[in-house]
Amino acid sequence: MEAWVVGVDLGATKIALGLIDAQNRIVARQRVPTAPLEGPAAAVARIAQAVDALKTALPADARLAGLGICSPGPLDHRTGMLLDPPNLTGWIDVPLRQMLVDRLGLPVILEHDAKAAALGEYHYGAGRGERDMVYIVVGTGVGSALILDGRVHRGRNNSAGEVGHITIRATGDVCSCGNVGCVESFTAGPAIARAYRRALAAAGAHRPAESSEAITTENIVGRARGGEPLAVQVLADAGEALGTAVATLAMILDVELYVIGSSVAKAGDLLLEPARQAVAHHAHRSVAARVRIVRSALEDDGPILGCGWLARQRP
Amino acid sequence: MEAWVVGVDLGATKIALGLIDAQNRIVARQRVPTAPLEGPAAAVARIAQAVDALKTALPADARLAGLGICSPGPLDHRTGMLLDPPNLTGWIDVPLRQMLVDRLGLPVILEHDAKAAALGEYHYGAGRGERDMVYIVVGTGVGSALILDGRVHRGRNNSAGEVGHITIRATGDVCSCGNVGCVESFTAGPAIARAYRRALAAAGAHRPAESSEAITTENIVGRARGGEPLAVQVLADAGEALGTAVATLAMILDVELYVIGSSVAKAGDLLLEPARQAVAHHAHRSVAARVRIVRSALEDDGPILGCGWLARQRP
Repeated sequence: MEAWVVGVDLGATKIALGLIDAQNRIVARQRVPTAPLEGPAAAVARIAQAVDALKTALPADARLAGLGICSPGPLDHRTGMLLDPPNLTGWIDVPLRQMLVDRLGLPVILEHDAKAAALGEYHYGAGRGERDMVYIVVGTGVGSALILDGRVHRGRNNSAGEVGHITIRATGDVCSCGNVGCVESFTAGPAIARAYRRALAAAGAHRPAESSEAITTENIVGRARGGEPLAVQVLADAGEALGTAVATLAMILDVELYVIGSSVAKAGDLLLEPARQAVAHHAHRSVAARVRIVRSALEDDGPILGCGWLARQRP
Repeated sequence: MEAWVVGVDLGATKIALGLIDAQNRIVARQRVPTAPLEGPAAAVARIAQAVDALKTALPADARLAGLGICSPGPLDHRTGMLLDPPNLTGWIDVPLRQMLVDRLGLPVILEHDAKAAALGEYHYGAGRGERDMVYIVVGTGVGSALILDGRVHRGRNNSAGEVGHITIRATGDVCSCGNVGCVESFTAGPAIARAYRRALAAAGAHRPAESSEAITTENIVGRARGGEPLAVQVLADAGEALGTAVATLAMILDVELYVIGSSVAKAGDLLLEPARQAVAHHAHRSVAARVRIVRSALEDDGPILGCGWLARQRP
């Protein structure tokens, strides 16, 4: 019998599930709200219901071998516990893996969402055939997962990859972490929106109508695609900071491939081309020549497929 | 018969050799000039002569099992070739390992000097009993070697650890690499001397006598030890930049122990205490709380003992 698995991407607002066949294709999907305020037990019940729905797509010659689930951190992948994820208010020390095992009767593995997305890209997406890869999430925050010699580098306390909070400049807005000059304070979605609002204000009375529309990264990307110089410049500035961080990673780790995912990555080359130029500027020439910065190939499917890969690693 | 080994630290000006017993103690030493302009064959002849001299200290129940040698990079540790080390002018594509094997009839292993020093500290010095460690050389330049999960992380092209050239500020002197804001342009010996000369010039006519003495890191450290505020401040500024780099490494790698070696490290806490404060300032609190920045325990013996360790790894 073929072994199929389920991958689950548990986010702050929604839970996306995929049924994955033996060829690592997502053949059926479910999507349910997380409703974090209702607590983890309610979310587990919703996940179980969605898994039941996915099972109806399972062929007669296949069995469900396991489930991988990823969520925002901090979490402990060894014990399968969510610790105190800021994006899931009130979910403190939740034994999510055990709750799912009890409910589903399946082997379950829990992983951090950026690491799961990285594993998805590494095995099935932009990182196929590579030895090393850094996956960088650029969304509401900036984080990363490091794959070195084919393995996730976790660090002594499982906190490696905090690239959003390395210092690249001596000045700038105070970051959410309290530091000044963090990558995240230049490159994350909220930083881009803030920079755009400032640029609009500096452009002054010429653009009063702009204030009526919500300023989101998506809107800014849309305006930049339409050729609006302010929007193009704001994304270029964010890309410059991202590229400076990639240069630092490349100089320290000597990794060649950087895969950029999550919402801000949807800006594509409006963000990534200035990032590439910044790498050329900040890294040694021989290092910069080998660095490749690409968009996530799997986009939102990355975490689900990464969870599927993890589910297959269980004995 | 006990297996003894020889460790060789080949530098730009001198070659330091140590005979290492089965308990990993250096029991005899030799020191000869490198005289790089005479070429690698002359240096190999001098090394062979020094090894012969060391052999006279070998007890009857011991045999020489191998030799480890380290040198400035770039080099290829797999083939044992020096590529084109800038500090050994004219030594292009030198098959140093094979030359030594032919001359000595011993197994020989070649490693980069910072990596050898790191391995020495890791196995016999400040890193004993640790899983991960970063060794940072702060001398004429700034470099590092990363030991992750007990192994040297080399990177895709053997160039990992270039911490001297990560960008930590948007402004500053142009670095030797052409970039602005590199760690090395704030923290290396020449940067410290430059900053001190500037500070003296800014202090102006009050200190005309200062110009008669050569300004070296050693002198600046001596003056700082004597309580001279300008010298203390210049070393503190260098330490701040070093600490910012350590914060970056800690956030990316989640490594706890940073061992600082080479000439500028001799400033001790005049450099390292400001570095620790910078880590507290630039890294997340939970990360900073676990970071330890210490001086090399083995100092100049680190590379020799690291080479000895490498010599023992050969089959």
